[in-house]
Amino acid sequence: MNQFSPLIQQLIDAFRILPGVGPKSAQRMALHLLERDKQGAEHLASKLQESVANIQRCQHCRILTELPVCGICQDSRRDPKLLCVVQNPADVIAIEQAGAYRGRYFVLSGHLSPIDGIGPEDIGIPDLTERLRQEGVVEVVLATNATVEGEATAYYVAEMAKALSLKASRIAHGIPLGGELEYVDGSTLARALLERKPI
Amino acid sequence: MNQFSPLIQQLIDAFRILPGVGPKSAQRMALHLLERDKQGAEHLASKLQESVANIQRCQHCRILTELPVCGICQDSRRDPKLLCVVQNPADVIAIEQAGAYRGRYFVLSGHLSPIDGIGPEDIGIPDLTERLRQEGVVEVVLATNATVEGEATAYYVAEMAKALSLKASRIAHGIPLGGELEYVDGSTLARALLERKPI
Repeated sequence: MNQFSPLIQQLIDAFRILPGVGPKSAQRMALHLLERDKQGAEHLASKLQESVANIQRCQHCRILTELPVCGICQDSRRDPKLLCVVQNPADVIAIEQAGAYRGRYFVLSGHLSPIDGIGPEDIGIPDLTERLRQEGVVEVVLATNATVEGEATAYYVAEMAKALSLKASRIAHGIPLGGELEYVDGSTLARALLERKPI
Repeated sequence: MNQFSPLIQQLIDAFRILPGVGPKSAQRMALHLLERDKQGAEHLASKLQESVANIQRCQHCRILTELPVCGICQDSRRDPKLLCVVQNPADVIAIEQAGAYRGRYFVLSGHLSPIDGIGPEDIGIPDLTERLRQEGVVEVVLATNATVEGEATAYYVAEMAKALSLKASRIAHGIPLGGELEYVDGSTLARALLERKPI
């Protein structure tokens, strides 16, 4: 026998679907649960099932939630004139934790990527257009990633917003706070110089 | 809202029981499954439940298996005169993969640790004694870890084996194969010098 028993091997393989989990980590996870935390394993299994059954995208902003409409969309204190467009649900949490934004959100399903056949329809642009048309949005804040695809997606949405006579803005890029110039990568530094502001 | 919806947060917390998974990894795992692999999540949940329900220790060698007696113990080609004692089920797989051992195994539940109140009964020594008494074991091969506790456990089992008039041996410690002397830690090097062999 060069392997675990079939069921243990199946459990190890099932752990491999998790991001960042290779064969050794998957083995460690499976054996840890089976040897030391069967109760935790059962809890994880039931939370996985409950989540798969109940969590979907908010009908309004497309963030992940177990409610038909998420807490942010339901919150009447949020500024309806500002709409922040992000690529992933985790980006909303990051922005919320920064605590500097009081508008609403729209979560795309990733970014545009014509080379992979991912067009506007695939990432939810029609829903976004619908929302921009029907609600009193004044400014679209583009907070897609600072990658080539993220920039292209931001540009596409900005053009769309302008066609609807809305303001479009992009979050600032440059030297991160606390960052020492010496250790900042070249492209960030070039961008920071290019976008320098008068003081 | 500074957090995910309650159910997503519960799923993230459930992932935290896995070894080596901190808050950020747990968040990434939960969002990855919910956004991109609900089918994988369901598969993982069902494998977890199936494993928790069916996997226990082999009645004979205490390795983890879904069978009452594991494949190794059932294999009649295994040498019944050799019994290798290890600390964890994963150690058996490591030894099997090395392909240099054709005897049988006994898996302890960890190591002796009087300071934490872990005595011989807690790690399965009575079952081991029983097995040494009843079967035709001639030599006990001690393959517990090369840590202070592993050494102490090996010493304890060796004394027990000798009291039953059996041979006891310890796997060799020294420079790993392919290891460059320059990068080997001091205690390993000291041990390698101390246990030098005539050539």
